[in-house]
Amino acid sequence: MIVEMRRGATTDEVDGVVQRAESLGLNVQLNLGTDKTVVAILGSNTGQLSTDTFAVLPGVESITRIMKPYKLASREFKAEDSLVSVSGIEIGSDRIVVMAGPCAVESEEQLAKAAKVVKEAGACILRGGAFKPRTSPFSFQGMKKAGLELLGRIKEQFGIPVITEVVDPHDVSLVSKYADILQIGSRNMQNYPLLTDVGRNKRPVVLKRGFSCTVTEWLTAADYLLSEGNTQVILCERGIRTFEDSVRFSLDISSIPVIKRFSHLPIIVDPSHAAGHYSLVPAIAKAAVAAGADGLLIEVHPNPKEALIDGLQSLTPSDFARLMGELRAIAKSVGRYI
Amino acid sequence: MIVEMRRGATTDEVDGVVQRAESLGLNVQLNLGTDKTVVAILGSNTGQLSTDTFAVLPGVESITRIMKPYKLASREFKAEDSLVSVSGIEIGSDRIVVMAGPCAVESEEQLAKAAKVVKEAGACILRGGAFKPRTSPFSFQGMKKAGLELLGRIKEQFGIPVITEVVDPHDVSLVSKYADILQIGSRNMQNYPLLTDVGRNKRPVVLKRGFSCTVTEWLTAADYLLSEGNTQVILCERGIRTFEDSVRFSLDISSIPVIKRFSHLPIIVDPSHAAGHYSLVPAIAKAAVAAGADGLLIEVHPNPKEALIDGLQSLTPSDFARLMGELRAIAKSVGRYI
Amino acid sequence: MIVEMRRGATTDEVDGVVQRAESLGLNVQLNLGTDKTVVAILGSNTGQLSTDTFAVLPGVESITRIMKPYKLASREFKAEDSLVSVSGIEIGSDRIVVMAGPCAVESEEQLAKAAKVVKEAGACILRGGAFKPRTSPFSFQGMKKAGLELLGRIKEQFGIPVITEVVDPHDVSLVSKYADILQIGSRNMQNYPLLTDVGRNKRPVVLKRGFSCTVTEWLTAADYLLSEGNTQVILCERGIRTFEDSVRFSLDISSIPVIKRFSHLPIIVDPSHAAGHYSLVPAIAKAAVAAGADGLLIEVHPNPKEALIDGLQSLTPSDFARLMGELRAIAKSVGRYI
Amino acid sequence: MIVEMRRGATTDEVDGVVQRAESLGLNVQLNLGTDKTVVAILGSNTGQLSTDTFAVLPGVESITRIMKPYKLASREFKAEDSLVSVSGIEIGSDRIVVMAGPCAVESEEQLAKAAKVVKEAGACILRGGAFKPRTSPFSFQGMKKAGLELLGRIKEQFGIPVITEVVDPHDVSLVSKYADILQIGSRNMQNYPLLTDVGRNKRPVVLKRGFSCTVTEWLTAADYLLSEGNTQVILCERGIRTFEDSVRFSLDISSIPVIKRFSHLPIIVDPSHAAGHYSLVPAIAKAAVAAGADGLLIEVHPNPKEALIDGLQSLTPSDFARLMGELRAIAKSVGRYI
Repeated sequence: MIVEMRRGATTDEVDGVVQRAESLGLNVQLNLGTDKTVVAILGSNTGQLSTDTFAVLPGVESITRIMKPYKLASREFKAEDSLVSVSGIEIGSDRIVVMAGPCAVESEEQLAKAAKVVKEAGACILRGGAFKPRTSPFSFQGMKKAGLELLGRIKEQFGIPVITEVVDPHDVSLVSKYADILQIGSRNMQNYPLLTDVGRNKRPVVLKRGFSCTVTEWLTAADYLLSEGNTQVILCERGIRTFEDSVRFSLDISSIPVIKRFSHLPIIVDPSHAAGHYSLVPAIAKAAVAAGADGLLIEVHPNPKEALIDGLQSLTPSDFARLMGELRAIAKSVGRYI
Repeated sequence: MIVEMRRGATTDEVDGVVQRAESLGLNVQLNLGTDKTVVAILGSNTGQLSTDTFAVLPGVESITRIMKPYKLASREFKAEDSLVSVSGIEIGSDRIVVMAGPCAVESEEQLAKAAKVVKEAGACILRGGAFKPRTSPFSFQGMKKAGLELLGRIKEQFGIPVITEVVDPHDVSLVSKYADILQIGSRNMQNYPLLTDVGRNKRPVVLKRGFSCTVTEWLTAADYLLSEGNTQVILCERGIRTFEDSVRFSLDISSIPVIKRFSHLPIIVDPSHAAGHYSLVPAIAKAAVAAGADGLLIEVHPNPKEALIDGLQSLTPSDFARLMGELRAIAKSVGRYI
Repeated sequence: MIVEMRRGATTDEVDGVVQRAESLGLNVQLNLGTDKTVVAILGSNTGQLSTDTFAVLPGVESITRIMKPYKLASREFKAEDSLVSVSGIEIGSDRIVVMAGPCAVESEEQLAKAAKVVKEAGACILRGGAFKPRTSPFSFQGMKKAGLELLGRIKEQFGIPVITEVVDPHDVSLVSKYADILQIGSRNMQNYPLLTDVGRNKRPVVLKRGFSCTVTEWLTAADYLLSEGNTQVILCERGIRTFEDSVRFSLDISSIPVIKRFSHLPIIVDPSHAAGHYSLVPAIAKAAVAAGADGLLIEVHPNPKEALIDGLQSLTPSDFARLMGELRAIAKSVGRYI
Repeated sequence: MIVEMRRGATTDEVDGVVQRAESLGLNVQLNLGTDKTVVAILGSNTGQLSTDTFAVLPGVESITRIMKPYKLASREFKAEDSLVSVSGIEIGSDRIVVMAGPCAVESEEQLAKAAKVVKEAGACILRGGAFKPRTSPFSFQGMKKAGLELLGRIKEQFGIPVITEVVDPHDVSLVSKYADILQIGSRNMQNYPLLTDVGRNKRPVVLKRGFSCTVTEWLTAADYLLSEGNTQVILCERGIRTFEDSVRFSLDISSIPVIKRFSHLPIIVDPSHAAGHYSLVPAIAKAAVAAGADGLLIEVHPNPKEALIDGLQSLTPSDFARLMGELRAIAKSVGRYI
């Protein structure tokens, strides 16, 4: 932490900063410039310290962090890439893992059809929401427990692991009875009771990026899961909120190399929620693979026109099959496979 | 809902839209332009319908909503201003209600001192957090139940109602035993299980704006509370995330007149979390009163230098007393009082 | 400038940084932490140095500025508030200066009517655009030279100074023949040839904030004007681009106290372009005065329904007169006058 | 244009809207809903009409555009892809055109080295700035005319066309004597005098996206060039301003498919200015090719450590050569070549 003193700060004020740092057992070094004094407070645990600890002291102009606020998710904590294993499928390896299926579980027939087509096209994990967080209380909220049971049945029948979202801390143990991967949605990235409960549960978890959270906040949220002992964490970029109005969210393609640089966790991309429109999904999915994503989470519906939720961003089975062919070529061109 | 057909859409495609609308019992009118056909789908319940219902149909270019997605929070639903009553204090009336106190409950001594100074300065509700949602799992998470009990004691001792945050659906009934107003934090504005439980509880509730949510999404979140039967809803603007880096969040001053135009709910402003720095709090608080806010939520700490959380944005007792004097003058100039 | 070395950086890499700093005549201090070495490079001229100078060197993790990139606009350069004087009207004093008038000069009759009503209501400077930068080439681009001549005539007739925009470096001397204040629009805040020419011209100038520029970038743009010798610089906050869609731009109310803290230049506020809708203008204007703005720039049209540009955000004469009354009361409550 | 009347609007108010539309020669259709009346105003020229024309009328609640505000840049105006031809190189074809070179022209030796390495690696156009728009007046502003002359010499010597930026309308004819492609920078996307002059000049032009402009505004700015008769327009996505702070700008990868859907103009991508750090450039460049970009604009410096500007985002010759190999593989996987 770098404490910049105000121009003309007194010796007493500088001493106040030094004493507070030393009282916390931190290493302090003074830099006396001609204009300003700068106090460097060093130590690996300063990342978890609030900058306010020093910013409130008299004579302080501003504070800059040197250490990142996240710890367990950082590459400094763990240098080699983490692999997450789901029924023998490794996420974070050379294989690009495609998870696909409908936004919401709607019926046995719909889910079975979806499972069939996505598996045939090469997806190895089935997605489908049973609990649906909706912006309006008057919208369809998902089939809930019945949806979970359907997921359980289809998973057995088709031999494909499933990912589904959990939105309420009350439901973590119920959902984890059926799900191979728990999904934490964008609006819950900073829902700390939920993160804590999922962290204790130890199922593999996909942590979607909050749509207005920085990469640093995202990795700090991952620390909640990791600090409870759940090391099976997969990050999912799904677009951020910007001023651009031609898409629902702007996919932050640079978060892929940024995550690879600063964290050991695997990262997948959800092009469907970012685009908001099926016609834009393929280009974004292809870009994600080229940029180094470890997997994709794509909405596919046997009949998007009849989908209860998010039909516009869902691919048809044939569009999905075509896209998978294109993705295989790109994966190969970057030394990976699907 | 206005459905714009693609240039060259066929009669069958237009019919497809008309038929889907009619199958939902909606009123349809066709507009045949020289370039494009536009289908107007009218009816008061179209606001709660997903635009995807029509956007997925062949030949459709784009959809525009006419009705807002929120309903119960709208001024069209209820024309006159709503008043929320807390121990005889009316929020939404000519009185500007100031809620003040520390970010977190830290000790009996700290809370008692805070209660004394804010009450003396003219605040009529005491704030203080017992459960603290923190970005890092390694940060102080609040005194939890012990903090609630302290709030209960101080409230009796000083005769001042209290507002405190609830972050976990598990804790709603516990927190509402002690709190006169439940606070839903910015990161939980779209935490639907929490909204639903607080909506059922019926305590007055302050719903903070999600830091990246539009006014429309905010009012739609309020519908979750209202639709469960809790009509005691107070909105709280606390700043939005922008590119500007001289403050923690940019206070959206225009949300005050926008809310007054589109909703009947009272709105208060939290200048402390927006500013992130005590020196900026007074200007923002004064602006809020001039712009028509019904109240303020301000962080005041008996000794900000020793605060466990957010000391930098907390006012000292003397700064708060001075600010209250300034606010009284502005309140009077806009025909209100504190 | 604070240079954070990578964990495990070699002595040679640290020396490389030190040597480059010393070769530039800068003062260097080393901070050897247990995890990382931090090199503090101090001196008042480091604000104008690119961070890349050091960031490109081997072993460097990241760079943090201590000195701000702007210099002449900073309060460190000039501690006392600057006053800008226009025909005896001082901007930056206790008087809140209201500049009002139509978006565009449309005709002699329109401009004369506007001048009459805004002067009667208490505005002391007339605004009116002769050159209009428009997003579409097919829109009305202003009356250009004829508009300037009209401004010149009306100014004489009503004895009121005028402010008008200059958009092209070619036109600076022409426009300054007629204008008492030159306005640089939001889209031109970083148009450096224009800034340079206006800086050389020495007329008082209103520098509008770029709608996506930080306060730091804004003050650095002001340095372009100041460094050419034009010290008559007035800043104008007019809203920034955010995700919120109920207004055209979100007025950044906190920029007022931030500017007052970091700069000596006066700041005015344009509520009209931010709001985009007449009904929101009064609340924003009142907030600006309460927050400490030195003036306002408001669109008023004798007949907004017939305005060629921006009619929706223009106040009618009677709405403007009512607002001026309300603003006087608020100005008084903060110890100022209109 | 869809005009939504307020609930309870009178017949006279509805008539007012109809009459204004008819007075402009527009086709009007009324939609009488149970809650609200909606007036559809149709016609291909309504895109260029201000929404304020109707929004100011009494009884109007809001206006929605159906037609886009841009015209000449739209795919509705020209269905087939446009090709831009520069010395026999076609941009917008199956060939992915790589333009590379230093941010700024610094010396003959630097530019010659850069030309040599980028040409050898497969770039077919050389970039280099002679006029440099800089945020601070105290920064290096480019070699100006001497830089242009160097570009002219190197271009002859190496037989490679050059692209360079023009920032001042005064300089358009001078710059076009040396440049094969004129570049309009991000901060000048809405500099209308510059757009007009470059539009009249008719050299091929790269129009960079304003870092806070929507795709719609970008295409409307292209209309300025096109309406002056310059059809040789290439769009360049270079990142937008968001809250994310791990990069300088967030590259909007979805703008590629969005532009392909709505416009006939070719689009290239500048990964260097978006990333701001050389280590992130390859991933973004690869993503751009996979997403369908027609070319890339990449900063390469013979010795980034000595670069006067933007060294941190410049690739070394060997990094660039390696990236070109990777890009060739991806180009092939999407049916194109470099």
